[in-house]
Amino acid sequence: MAEQKATNVHWHEGDITREHRAKILGHKGATLWFTGLSGSGKSTVAVELEGILNEMGVLAYRLDGDNVRMGINKNLGFSAEDRTENIRRIGEVAKLFVDAGVIALSSFISPYAADRDQVRALHQAAGMDFIEVYVDCSLAAAESRDPKGLYKKARAGEIKNFTGIDDPYEAPAKPEIHLHSDQQTLAEEVEHILTVLRERGIITA
Amino acid sequence: MAEQKATNVHWHEGDITREHRAKILGHKGATLWFTGLSGSGKSTVAVELEGILNEMGVLAYRLDGDNVRMGINKNLGFSAEDRTENIRRIGEVAKLFVDAGVIALSSFISPYAADRDQVRALHQAAGMDFIEVYVDCSLAAAESRDPKGLYKKARAGEIKNFTGIDDPYEAPAKPEIHLHSDQQTLAEEVEHILTVLRERGIITA
Repeated sequence: MAEQKATNVHWHEGDITREHRAKILGHKGATLWFTGLSGSGKSTVAVELEGILNEMGVLAYRLDGDNVRMGINKNLGFSAEDRTENIRRIGEVAKLFVDAGVIALSSFISPYAADRDQVRALHQAAGMDFIEVYVDCSLAAAESRDPKGLYKKARAGEIKNFTGIDDPYEAPAKPEIHLHSDQQTLAEEVEHILTVLRERGIITA
Repeated sequence: MAEQKATNVHWHEGDITREHRAKILGHKGATLWFTGLSGSGKSTVAVELEGILNEMGVLAYRLDGDNVRMGINKNLGFSAEDRTENIRRIGEVAKLFVDAGVIALSSFISPYAADRDQVRALHQAAGMDFIEVYVDCSLAAAESRDPKGLYKKARAGEIKNFTGIDDPYEAPAKPEIHLHSDQQTLAEEVEHILTVLRERGIITA
């Protein structure tokens, strides 16, 4: 590199940190990790929350099957090993988003407690907020919704290892947020989450 | 889900898009893909640019060895297959950042044209800006800097398949930005990049 000429384009305060980015954005980054049965309403509440946060001027981004399973994780299947790697990578991507100052909304069944705990540990080791949002819903209610017809196929044996049917869902023991999507309104669920984000100082509005 | 109660917390305009996020941020997302030899100055210019963008209130985020090789790609080695998968994943992560509205600054040697072209195609198929920044520097100049002592080890045969020594670097044929770090000042390099970001309407300042 040739010698630095005098210029107004010069940055000399060292690396940009999370604090710098929080100043630009007016809020902190955090991961909201939605977990629950297929059909429990994870995406519904994540989409609604994303819209509300956007109206508040808060930068949030949803990680879901559409942009993750078809993208960075497209070379993963549904073996036990691949499911764990799937969640590991999503956790690492979420962590990068938090570092960038964004509120990451991760919306996957993520049935195994050990996998979720690993993502939590990853965030906490870096001093980042990890908020597990358990979207609790009875199997009967989720199955009666069956928006994608997956329970029907699982009951018919056309899909194997389906969470809640022939594969376990390990409910979070101590989720930061416990929603009951078969009893609460969508607005109540979102309000609960916003309250926690305010209490933790992630958003101020 | 119980019936939606009347509330001021309600979003009903459909999914949040890149346009919504650009409105919050005041700029668009884009991937700046820095490529060049080890020691060519990729990280130096990326760090400087990140600082300048931050001063302008633009949200940028660097993807580099520190946060990628130790994180999402920690289960990858340096075989040909793993190198390609390394770049593929970084490309997918960068794309998610662009979708979120962030300017992703990717800083890896990324020596193979085919790998970079795949990342470019991925972005362009989604209507996203992909800006290849070739940090051009003679091997002699890069080797004389040798900030990490890697060239010395490669010459001594202690590191195999080192780009520029016993592994090829495929220079970009048509990079959007062609820097000459052994001839330009850091300020000149950054100004060049800012001009392109303005011309493309990614930033307005």
